[in-house]
Amino acid sequence: MDIATVSGIIVAYALVIGSLVIGAGLGTYIDIPSVMIVVGGTIGIVLVNFPLSNVLGAMGPLLKAFLYKSTDLNGIVDTLVKYAVKARRDGILALETAVDEVSEPLMKTGLQMVVDGEEPNLVRGILETDLDNREERHKIGVAIFESIGAYAPAMGMIGTLIGLVAMLKTMNDPSTIGPSMATALITTFYGAIISNMFALPIAGKLSLRASEESMAGQLIIDGIMSIQSGDNPRMMEQKLQAFIAPKKRVSQFNK
Amino acid sequence: MDIATVSGIIVAYALVIGSLVIGAGLGTYIDIPSVMIVVGGTIGIVLVNFPLSNVLGAMGPLLKAFLYKSTDLNGIVDTLVKYAVKARRDGILALETAVDEVSEPLMKTGLQMVVDGEEPNLVRGILETDLDNREERHKIGVAIFESIGAYAPAMGMIGTLIGLVAMLKTMNDPSTIGPSMATALITTFYGAIISNMFALPIAGKLSLRASEESMAGQLIIDGIMSIQSGDNPRMMEQKLQAFIAPKKRVSQFNK
Amino acid sequence: MDIATVSGIIVAYALVIGSLVIGAGLGTYIDIPSVMIVVGGTIGIVLVNFPLSNVLGAMGPLLKAFLYKSTDLNGIVDTLVKYAVKARRDGILALETAVDEVSEPLMKTGLQMVVDGEEPNLVRGILETDLDNREERHKIGVAIFESIGAYAPAMGMIGTLIGLVAMLKTMNDPSTIGPSMATALITTFYGAIISNMFALPIAGKLSLRASEESMAGQLIIDGIMSIQSGDNPRMMEQKLQAFIAPKKRVSQFNK
Amino acid sequence: MDIATVSGIIVAYALVIGSLVIGAGLGTYIDIPSVMIVVGGTIGIVLVNFPLSNVLGAMGPLLKAFLYKSTDLNGIVDTLVKYAVKARRDGILALETAVDEVSEPLMKTGLQMVVDGEEPNLVRGILETDLDNREERHKIGVAIFESIGAYAPAMGMIGTLIGLVAMLKTMNDPSTIGPSMATALITTFYGAIISNMFALPIAGKLSLRASEESMAGQLIIDGIMSIQSGDNPRMMEQKLQAFIAPKKRVSQFNK
Amino acid sequence: MDIATVSGIIVAYALVIGSLVIGAGLGTYIDIPSVMIVVGGTIGIVLVNFPLSNVLGAMGPLLKAFLYKSTDLNGIVDTLVKYAVKARRDGILALETAVDEVSEPLMKTGLQMVVDGEEPNLVRGILETDLDNREERHKIGVAIFESIGAYAPAMGMIGTLIGLVAMLKTMNDPSTIGPSMATALITTFYGAIISNMFALPIAGKLSLRASEESMAGQLIIDGIMSIQSGDNPRMMEQKLQAFIAPKKRVSQFNK
Repeated sequence: MDIATVSGIIVAYALVIGSLVIGAGLGTYIDIPSVMIVVGGTIGIVLVNFPLSNVLGAMGPLLKAFLYKSTDLNGIVDTLVKYAVKARRDGILALETAVDEVSEPLMKTGLQMVVDGEEPNLVRGILETDLDNREERHKIGVAIFESIGAYAPAMGMIGTLIGLVAMLKTMNDPSTIGPSMATALITTFYGAIISNMFALPIAGKLSLRASEESMAGQLIIDGIMSIQSGDNPRMMEQKLQAFIAPKKRVSQFNK
Repeated sequence: MDIATVSGIIVAYALVIGSLVIGAGLGTYIDIPSVMIVVGGTIGIVLVNFPLSNVLGAMGPLLKAFLYKSTDLNGIVDTLVKYAVKARRDGILALETAVDEVSEPLMKTGLQMVVDGEEPNLVRGILETDLDNREERHKIGVAIFESIGAYAPAMGMIGTLIGLVAMLKTMNDPSTIGPSMATALITTFYGAIISNMFALPIAGKLSLRASEESMAGQLIIDGIMSIQSGDNPRMMEQKLQAFIAPKKRVSQFNK
Repeated sequence: MDIATVSGIIVAYALVIGSLVIGAGLGTYIDIPSVMIVVGGTIGIVLVNFPLSNVLGAMGPLLKAFLYKSTDLNGIVDTLVKYAVKARRDGILALETAVDEVSEPLMKTGLQMVVDGEEPNLVRGILETDLDNREERHKIGVAIFESIGAYAPAMGMIGTLIGLVAMLKTMNDPSTIGPSMATALITTFYGAIISNMFALPIAGKLSLRASEESMAGQLIIDGIMSIQSGDNPRMMEQKLQAFIAPKKRVSQFNK
Repeated sequence: MDIATVSGIIVAYALVIGSLVIGAGLGTYIDIPSVMIVVGGTIGIVLVNFPLSNVLGAMGPLLKAFLYKSTDLNGIVDTLVKYAVKARRDGILALETAVDEVSEPLMKTGLQMVVDGEEPNLVRGILETDLDNREERHKIGVAIFESIGAYAPAMGMIGTLIGLVAMLKTMNDPSTIGPSMATALITTFYGAIISNMFALPIAGKLSLRASEESMAGQLIIDGIMSIQSGDNPRMMEQKLQAFIAPKKRVSQFNK
Repeated sequence: MDIATVSGIIVAYALVIGSLVIGAGLGTYIDIPSVMIVVGGTIGIVLVNFPLSNVLGAMGPLLKAFLYKSTDLNGIVDTLVKYAVKARRDGILALETAVDEVSEPLMKTGLQMVVDGEEPNLVRGILETDLDNREERHKIGVAIFESIGAYAPAMGMIGTLIGLVAMLKTMNDPSTIGPSMATALITTFYGAIISNMFALPIAGKLSLRASEESMAGQLIIDGIMSIQSGDNPRMMEQKLQAFIAPKKRVSQFNK
């Protein structure tokens, strides 16, 4: 669990809710029809914009955004170097057992193809197509949250326009203008909250995760190709560590 | 038919229309001159921005957005692998019958050229040009709906400015200010509805469809080239399945 | 003449002018100083942003946007195939007469070089540089109209600020506030009209034309190279038709 | 001197200043504290965003934007063709004198390397790195004016917020509201003027100049490589003229 | 220390604070709940958008933005040329001592690999991966400050909406409207200050630094490859100086 994400969201919401309580009491800011038009309307539009399967598929990443764990690049390098050592000592076929141990899908596919003795060009081609398409799928997840971030304020504005027109049409008693306008503004407020305090930061986190996984994927492909071409493990480690920030590099050989 | 798109649009519109009824009665929000300036003006501008043939050509995709069916990548892989098996068993010419069965235009063109014995570089070149130009045409469809999404709020603002100036010029009786301003705001409201609850989500859905078809096209090209070069069908299947998410892959050979 | 562009612009303007007449009478919306600051100011800024030669050079494309005729890709393919047939039958030098017939500059240059027996790499290099630079020039035309679309609303806002400050400074007689504010808003109205009902749709149409011409140029280059390398005309036709939507393809050979 | 730029700026400013005089008198729109917060604040922020050396380095291009002279591509082609003729007639070493005549830095460097007999790949590599880095430096100049175009309206808004808060806090005498609000709006007015009537059009002009120089640089590199490889001057002219619009091409040989 | 950045920030803030004092007194603009919702809320959202490790890692660059020292490209060229001379005179192994002297990580890694006699392709591959990933890390630093620049005004607007709704709901005493609205606007003011006078210019400076370091890195890679391939130092200097603006080039050999 990523303690910072959780604390971040708690702090931000606590401050806003605190302001509401101080402002005019929490109740003033809760208006069920306004919730329905902003939340319901946004969900409806998102379902027009994206196929249902994609929207449901975005719920998994949403959870991951909270349970975020930075990808352990050093661990991946270690695993790949370990297999390289094994392959050089006991032959490529000795990696058959490795294929079963590994859970990361790209590494599993790659090692299997290496064990099967597929041609290097084919191996690289398949792994790169696989990674490209994984990136495409991640982009759709990000796009869903970004579109929530765009449609929620739009629905908020639509709600406010509905309220404003109603208020202006029936403007007899000046004493009702204030409260009517306050209610009209509440949908704009909901739209701003949903966009800036939920959808956009989630989209940002998912996008970061996607580029981290993409870098890990590139590292895995380079590693698999090194194993297949029988590179010296020490040299291979050096090559793969170029993906890691200098300070964080940990070598298996200099320990 | 994509049940989610239809429900999405029904839910979103029902919520907005419900708000109007509750707000100040549905009638308050219906103003024929406002409809004309926003809808008519937007159509007029879009006809300046795009040639008529493109605008009419965008009506087909509009329907598709509602009748959306996700491209069946597994089915395409299956078909291609089936033809690869056939070609290896009975010779390339045996695909002559396949050309007639196939309806997907890119696959049809590709198989025909393979049967005709065209040179692989030419086959790939023609199929890629074909796919590129299909993508160009899809982009125009998306651009039309995006431009509706941009011009409708602009026409809404123009309508509101017209109303505001009229109101301000003739501001004698304070009691008419409210209703006049309400009417002025209705064009902004229409612009926001057309943009956010119609044009932009349709543009988003068409854009997604376009990239799905583009991926399917890339898969078909790779498959056709594999058939022509006489690749092992099992290996070809593995290669093509890299386009599909790991969980959704279904192999013909491991059944 | 593109009937849709002309009708589009007539419909859009008729609706807006109709609204003005209904609103507060056409005269209310005509204010010469406001016209001068928005139109004159925008022209002035555009002349700072772009060299005079480019701005004058953009008047031609402006006319074309109205006289728009979709590029006849089938016609270009036909012409190129005709020359390919001729070159194979009567020799490359027989194209000497073709060079005189052709008016499209890229095709003329290309055929001339083929007749002159220039080296294929040089021919392709020159034609591609030529096409790239034509695209650059088209982009400047589009950029000029896009910058009008950005500066006109800015000048409108500047005009409105000038009016608002004047009104607020001298706010003695409340009865003059309305009309003064109406006048102040008129520049914003002009800016919105110029941007959305003139400059941006013209920029959009020119940009579409530019990409159509660019595609036609690519097709011509491929055709010229095919003629020079003595490709089979039937195969060349197939290659060039990949640039055309499947439904619109018309073959010279299957007639 | 580019007469259009100068007239453009005079026309635009004359119209705005005329409006001010007509509006509420020029004096109404001059407010020293407002000038200081918008101009001073913008300069301060730009100095945080860009190193001082870059900001000072942008003063040169600013002048060039006014003294704009379109790059004479025909002249460059002529010069290069003249040297090609000379090199073919008198040998590469005869260009030694040319190196001294030439002032354009890229052409000077290139000719010097050709005379020194450097390897073609090295020559092209050095010239392209040189051109790339020149483009990078031009982009920073454009970015400085674009950032003025973004920060000036922001400082204008900050100034207006300061004025509004002051006015609202001390809202006792209704007769002072108008003038106070007018003053508050003046910073927004200054921000809009600086952005739209100074910074953005200058950025636009510099960006155009940069792409013109970039095209000229590409032309020079192609020309130098042609001279070094001893291309036929007539053919070289044809190759280089592809960078020029067809109507503007002037051949040395067909004169 | 970059004197311009520090003066810039002092000038800009002094002018704004001066305006506050003149406006309605500094105290009027200080409101602790407003500070908390804008600053606290923004920090909270940024912690949702970025992993904690990245946010903490961005504090270093923040300091660098103030202590900015332009990268000394001439110095890097000098060092590389010095090592090239040494390597040609005393052999590649003589660079062993150089590896210890050098602190720039990319140059150190590169020289070490050259001394170790790694294959040129591997050396280039590792150095380029290293540089690419360094650029990725710099981009995250920039993205953090850009997201502060986007979320702070959003939190400001949310704070203002909260205040407006509270004010409108309880609009009994007209004399309190002004002060309540002033307070509501203060969060918008804070958001604008944080975004435009802190986050965005810092993001701009970091982004410039990143592209400078990236250029320096490219220069170092080219230099290392030149040393390894035993290029002539004079020619190597010329090659590397193409990265430097012509006026700033200082040659070791022409001194």
